[in-house]
Amino acid sequence: MPEKAPWITYRPELKVLDCTIRDGGLINNHLFTDEQVKAVYETCIAAGIDYMEVGYKNSARLFPKSDFGAWRHCDEEDLNRLFGDHDAEKTGLKLVAMADAEKSDWKTKVVPRSESVLDMIRVAFYAHQVSEAVEMIHHFNDLGYETMANLMAVSNITETEIDTVLENIAPTPAGTMVIVDSFGHLYREQVDRLYKKYTSAMEGTGKEIGIHAHNNMQLAFANTIEAIILGANRVDATMMGMGRGAGNCPMEILLGFLRNPKFSLRPVIQLLQDHIIPLREKVEWGPLVPYNITGQSNLHPQHAIKFRSSDHKDDFVKFYDEIKSEI
Amino acid sequence: MPEKAPWITYRPELKVLDCTIRDGGLINNHLFTDEQVKAVYETCIAAGIDYMEVGYKNSARLFPKSDFGAWRHCDEEDLNRLFGDHDAEKTGLKLVAMADAEKSDWKTKVVPRSESVLDMIRVAFYAHQVSEAVEMIHHFNDLGYETMANLMAVSNITETEIDTVLENIAPTPAGTMVIVDSFGHLYREQVDRLYKKYTSAMEGTGKEIGIHAHNNMQLAFANTIEAIILGANRVDATMMGMGRGAGNCPMEILLGFLRNPKFSLRPVIQLLQDHIIPLREKVEWGPLVPYNITGQSNLHPQHAIKFRSSDHKDDFVKFYDEIKSEI
Repeated sequence: MPEKAPWITYRPELKVLDCTIRDGGLINNHLFTDEQVKAVYETCIAAGIDYMEVGYKNSARLFPKSDFGAWRHCDEEDLNRLFGDHDAEKTGLKLVAMADAEKSDWKTKVVPRSESVLDMIRVAFYAHQVSEAVEMIHHFNDLGYETMANLMAVSNITETEIDTVLENIAPTPAGTMVIVDSFGHLYREQVDRLYKKYTSAMEGTGKEIGIHAHNNMQLAFANTIEAIILGANRVDATMMGMGRGAGNCPMEILLGFLRNPKFSLRPVIQLLQDHIIPLREKVEWGPLVPYNITGQSNLHPQHAIKFRSSDHKDDFVKFYDEIKSEI
Repeated sequence: MPEKAPWITYRPELKVLDCTIRDGGLINNHLFTDEQVKAVYETCIAAGIDYMEVGYKNSARLFPKSDFGAWRHCDEEDLNRLFGDHDAEKTGLKLVAMADAEKSDWKTKVVPRSESVLDMIRVAFYAHQVSEAVEMIHHFNDLGYETMANLMAVSNITETEIDTVLENIAPTPAGTMVIVDSFGHLYREQVDRLYKKYTSAMEGTGKEIGIHAHNNMQLAFANTIEAIILGANRVDATMMGMGRGAGNCPMEILLGFLRNPKFSLRPVIQLLQDHIIPLREKVEWGPLVPYNITGQSNLHPQHAIKFRSSDHKDDFVKFYDEIKSEI
């Protein structure tokens, strides 16, 4: 046992990424008002947050503009409209977009970093898409961007598949390899094993390890600090945990844990009160019982999301029986 | 790193205690209907839960019967009225009451175990009350009861005080020493340190270690499984986390984690749907922002409870400023 108290000191290398608009937009088809997005942006700056992920660089062919808001596509004109005068140096905040393998027109829709307000592109992919992910990382790196590699749904693939993905990502210029618990299924022993596997595979590459947790079993914050304890220096959180299904690691709890005096909790609480709690009254997220069940069962939250939009949405026993009979 | 997967096997020694009525009664002055208490009881049996804590053995002088429900006092006539035909052997469920140091008429109000439906009395105390707690444990043991020692608010006292309490509890007949995070302030590294301290102090006594977590920082379940991983064999949970302030470790999430096939999750989900969710619409608990703040600040949840009954209950920034200026 260490006799020190690392939970009251800090590592300056640890950087926080806010993905409220990106992950939260999966609940409302990214139909945020400019005012909402701007409020999150101003809060990130005031709170000392390092990165803000403003949305997806996804294809308008798959996500028509008639149905989805601007932050599903992050077109340069929308980025410039809202963040045209953004200064990463002055604010300490870097802007980020996520590009999904197979869902993104990444060869044509991303301009060089020197022409964009974005500083980083995160590449999200399932294990079987790793070859496209590697191409995407190289492409974005060639355009001058920082990159992160987000292997999704890691709880649902074999260790051999994980190893193969890591071997393929290791030689890329991605700055960070992220442990992504899309299903909210991981317990802390599993986070430990994955952290050791990821660090061992990335050894000598200079890559950081990141964590993106979901809150199906009220473990998003716990798994995030577990990864931090182990050494992860890139952590994702969202305001009030806003995000698909059970949501994410809540920023207000994470910042209350971090001891770097550059972080400030008060602006986040102000944002919750002014913008996020009113939003929560219109769209649903959080560790409700159906999300507990999909998390425990290692299933995509989509099962529970569909159920929560049905006319028997409060019949949790029915949902439990359906899941148990189907799997 | 262990190469095994202990999270998919189980220890038969691990026993679960439901304290929904006892801890939840702190929100509603124990004004439960008989139907509600009976529903929790039936659910505990159906779910394979080992202990149900039905309330406090507290004094009617301090908690007048005009203001508080039967389960604040657990008089024998109420116990017999509701649980008169209880059979611990047949149901696998033992009934428990909690007695607080200084709040309980413990010398006069507890009948011998052979005359009661109760099988265990838990003694709750603050560090400075340890001498009374030791007397209480001996007294209840002499009456034939199993006992547990619950040192409350452990995050708020010095290591020297903890050590002294443990030295005093070690020679008593208490079967379990419980790590009680009353303020919901502990992170996992602190749970680890306390677990090692408690086990080391209890070495050779045959005592089990228990965990009673609060959910201020959405860590109640995480800290509970952390203690389980380390070896704790007595764990507390409540239905939907019902309990004072931020609430407790949610039973539905805990049972989804435990792999002993004797446990059954479905009856718990049925109870939530039929009784606990309707109750939640009338009384409040859960990891709301004011409870995040008291947990992070190592303060008694009472600050946030008072705030949530004020007319500015949704002004979280005001609460944050008050707390930061007061401490």
